Amino acid sequence: MATVSETETDAYDELLTRIERITNVGNAAGVLRWDQEVVMPEGGTPARAKQLSTLSALGHELLTDERTGELLEALEDTELDGEKKAVVREIRRRYDRATSVPQDLVEEISETTANAHPTWVEAKEEDDFSIFEPTLEKLVDLQKEYANHIDPDADPYEVLFADYEPYLDLETAERVLERLRDELVPLLEAIDDSEADVETDAFAGTFDDDDQEALARDVLDSLGYDWDRGRLDTAPHPFSTGTQFDARVTTRFDENDLLGSITSTIHEFGHANYTLGLPDEGYGTPLGEARDLTVHESQSRLWENHVGRSRPFWEHFLPIARERFPELEDVSPEAAYEAANQVYDDNLIRVEADELTYHLHIVVRFEIERDLISGDLEVSDVPEAWNDKYEEYLGVRPETDTEGCLQDIHWSHGSFGYFPTYSLGSVLAAQLYAAAEDDLRELDDRVREGDFADLNGWLREEIHAHGKRYTTPDLVEEATGEAYTADYFLEYAKHKYGDLYDLENY
Amino acid sequence: MATVSETETDAYDELLTRIERITNVGNAAGVLRWDQEVVMPEGGTPARAKQLSTLSALGHELLTDERTGELLEALEDTELDGEKKAVVREIRRRYDRATSVPQDLVEEISETTANAHPTWVEAKEEDDFSIFEPTLEKLVDLQKEYANHIDPDADPYEVLFADYEPYLDLETAERVLERLRDELVPLLEAIDDSEADVETDAFAGTFDDDDQEALARDVLDSLGYDWDRGRLDTAPHPFSTGTQFDARVTTRFDENDLLGSITSTIHEFGHANYTLGLPDEGYGTPLGEARDLTVHESQSRLWENHVGRSRPFWEHFLPIARERFPELEDVSPEAAYEAANQVYDDNLIRVEADELTYHLHIVVRFEIERDLISGDLEVSDVPEAWNDKYEEYLGVRPETDTEGCLQDIHWSHGSFGYFPTYSLGSVLAAQLYAAAEDDLRELDDRVREGDFADLNGWLREEIHAHGKRYTTPDLVEEATGEAYTADYFLEYAKHKYGDLYDLENY
Repeated sequence: MATVSETETDAYDELLTRIERITNVGNAAGVLRWDQEVVMPEGGTPARAKQLSTLSALGHELLTDERTGELLEALEDTELDGEKKAVVREIRRRYDRATSVPQDLVEEISETTANAHPTWVEAKEEDDFSIFEPTLEKLVDLQKEYANHIDPDADPYEVLFADYEPYLDLETAERVLERLRDELVPLLEAIDDSEADVETDAFAGTFDDDDQEALARDVLDSLGYDWDRGRLDTAPHPFSTGTQFDARVTTRFDENDLLGSITSTIHEFGHANYTLGLPDEGYGTPLGEARDLTVHESQSRLWENHVGRSRPFWEHFLPIARERFPELEDVSPEAAYEAANQVYDDNLIRVEADELTYHLHIVVRFEIERDLISGDLEVSDVPEAWNDKYEEYLGVRPETDTEGCLQDIHWSHGSFGYFPTYSLGSVLAAQLYAAAEDDLRELDDRVREGDFADLNGWLREEIHAHGKRYTTPDLVEEATGEAYTADYFLEYAKHKYGDLYDLENY
Repeated sequence: MATVSETETDAYDELLTRIERITNVGNAAGVLRWDQEVVMPEGGTPARAKQLSTLSALGHELLTDERTGELLEALEDTELDGEKKAVVREIRRRYDRATSVPQDLVEEISETTANAHPTWVEAKEEDDFSIFEPTLEKLVDLQKEYANHIDPDADPYEVLFADYEPYLDLETAERVLERLRDELVPLLEAIDDSEADVETDAFAGTFDDDDQEALARDVLDSLGYDWDRGRLDTAPHPFSTGTQFDARVTTRFDENDLLGSITSTIHEFGHANYTLGLPDEGYGTPLGEARDLTVHESQSRLWENHVGRSRPFWEHFLPIARERFPELEDVSPEAAYEAANQVYDDNLIRVEADELTYHLHIVVRFEIERDLISGDLEVSDVPEAWNDKYEEYLGVRPETDTEGCLQDIHWSHGSFGYFPTYSLGSVLAAQLYAAAEDDLRELDDRVREGDFADLNGWLREEIHAHGKRYTTPDLVEEATGEAYTADYFLEYAKHKYGDLYDLENY
């Protein structure tokens, strides 16, 4: 039982002070990681690894201190209002997970992961899965052990998945991914069979990096990015990071891929914009933090796909792009729209995938991960299983491991269960956008005029402002009036691509 | 007595692990401060303040944990080799200081200082000392209280001074500063009376910022800056920061002051180059940390003044500068040398001072600080005392507080006792350079050829490699074979300026 003698208010305040400290340590580590990816000189790596490891250990110790447990128990014995209850619920979840895993295992995972990254890089460069195989085997074993400590009675993959999406259960994820597979495979076959003349080379050519950067700033200006609380830089793997006071975007430029830099910038804007919408006064507490990966990805995908790959967006944005690139003078908004939505019939690489194929990439990874963790698939069989699934779902077979199961970094991070949130977030994006369209009049017209204020206001109010106040299902229900569902995404996909590719049955 | 039962090795390892953690927290805070000065968006301030405050508190708690004291006691009871002894000595010093000051006072100082900065900015902008006066009074009182906790029997100014220079005692500082004052005042009068025709406008004109940045990179290339462990950025107040793995330089550009950006870049190179020379294997411990401010400043001043303001340097560097700025075609190395060493007879601002006047600026601050802390000077009398001393030592009376006692930021940081290290470091620079000249053949010729490897090798071996292994006096003695002395600086100053200004008695 609780040994806390203070009043509820004292205990709650003490818990907040404690979690604020933990959050500050985590946010400091976030700054160090941004620095490492964006500006740190190469030689800084050994010292940076030690700094990050110290911060991680200190955060862990503060969280797992028995005082945290005492305060939680005391507060769980009292009547709390909704917000406080949510704060206690979220801290309890973190505390239970952190205390159930022995420190030795945490350190072994951390060490194995640190060494896994260069091994994965080498295997990918050498196109040789066998280089990575023993490491992957060890990572799988460690993750199973980790899951077993957290909940020995649960499906270990479910436990891992919940690290990234705690409240939509694995069954929902499975159901949604199966449905995406079952409905997108025939849609893609129909597209493949279509003879529609879809413009593909509106953005062919080479585009100067500096001008692309200027245009990326135009994109962010246009969407309403708050430069007083953010900045744009380049990074090899674009990401965004930060807090509601300072949420930064990174992007990258390829002179042969202007469209890629625009969509990637919009995607990262979506993440940063969510972070910036979290309430200032909740800083340091769960009320000021994002509701995990599904919701985060819904924000990036909403802006990238529902706004950035829409006709009205290109009507608005093409004139801006022409200012930077006069060679786009003859490209029509319709041609830009088509180019931004072309479907590839031979795509092997997830990060280059179109909006539909993307989910089949995720399905492959999900099925392989699940079977690896359950033991139904041996690590040594991963390349073949991967290639078979690509052939089955995407109609294309990778010829190398580099283009196959070694393409993504996530497993080398020890991350299993992460991929599904990419699809779950995209699906949620469609549901949220449909609800916003219902609530806001003439949303298409606003986008066409480059007026994103109402859409952003809606997202702020319905999603961002709540932090972790609600669980994912409750947040979706509050925002849309419905349970989480893939209906809107599939309707959107069929309607949009049926129209684009003149498909008869869509 | 110590309650440590482990062997000496165990206790030492545990102490090292502990201090490495503390150092990592401090270095993480260093990254956050660099970020704040160089890249952080303005809006990030409130969250950054909280992150830094958490890191500072955690570092303090780790240091003052009673376990630190137990380990120190146990180790002090054993026979240790020289390096271990030095590590224990340095940690003991930090521990004793940190544990003798109550946490309440630490927090009050931190809070008062945080609020002092905007007040100082306002007072300076408004040219009104009375705005800053109550804050300065509070800061002085708090610093006296702080000093009193550390050593109630000592002169409080001596205690404060030792935060910046722990091993050269205040008496040495006083003696050196008095001697500088007594010898430089007549030297400057002689210069003022001189009719020598010293070139002053070799760098007159306006110089594009981007080209200045390119030239600053040339400067760093030329001196041998290790770009794999560093980077150059701009900041309103140039500084350098980091560790032996990642030591960064900042500088600033004023289109009317090319020379200023070159000398400032060289100065910051000197600091960063010292940091980079600290041994990798000592990272996280006192053996991998710089020997405080006097030695740090000796490194920046050695490069700035003894290299960067020398004739051979300009023979080497002028052709490089002409590549960026063809308008320097007609400037001779001698003219550049003279311009870089001109002495101003009406200089009110420390950071714009020449190599000689500079020390009189320091003497003024030192005398005022000492009298403020002893109580011999009232805060309200600071402006008049300041102006009187400027008139007496520098022959020029500030007409405003902005140009007078409000010009420097240090007091608003609560830093008293810091200024003397600027002069002590410059003095040491001369002593070290003379010793290097003795040890290395034809150093002037090397500089003329742009070959700084031997000089840098000498500094690495004699100074950088030792970290905090030796106390300041021992380090100086080891490196130069002599006790710390102002002789070399005064000899250098008289010789150089006597020559430049055709002074009869110098």
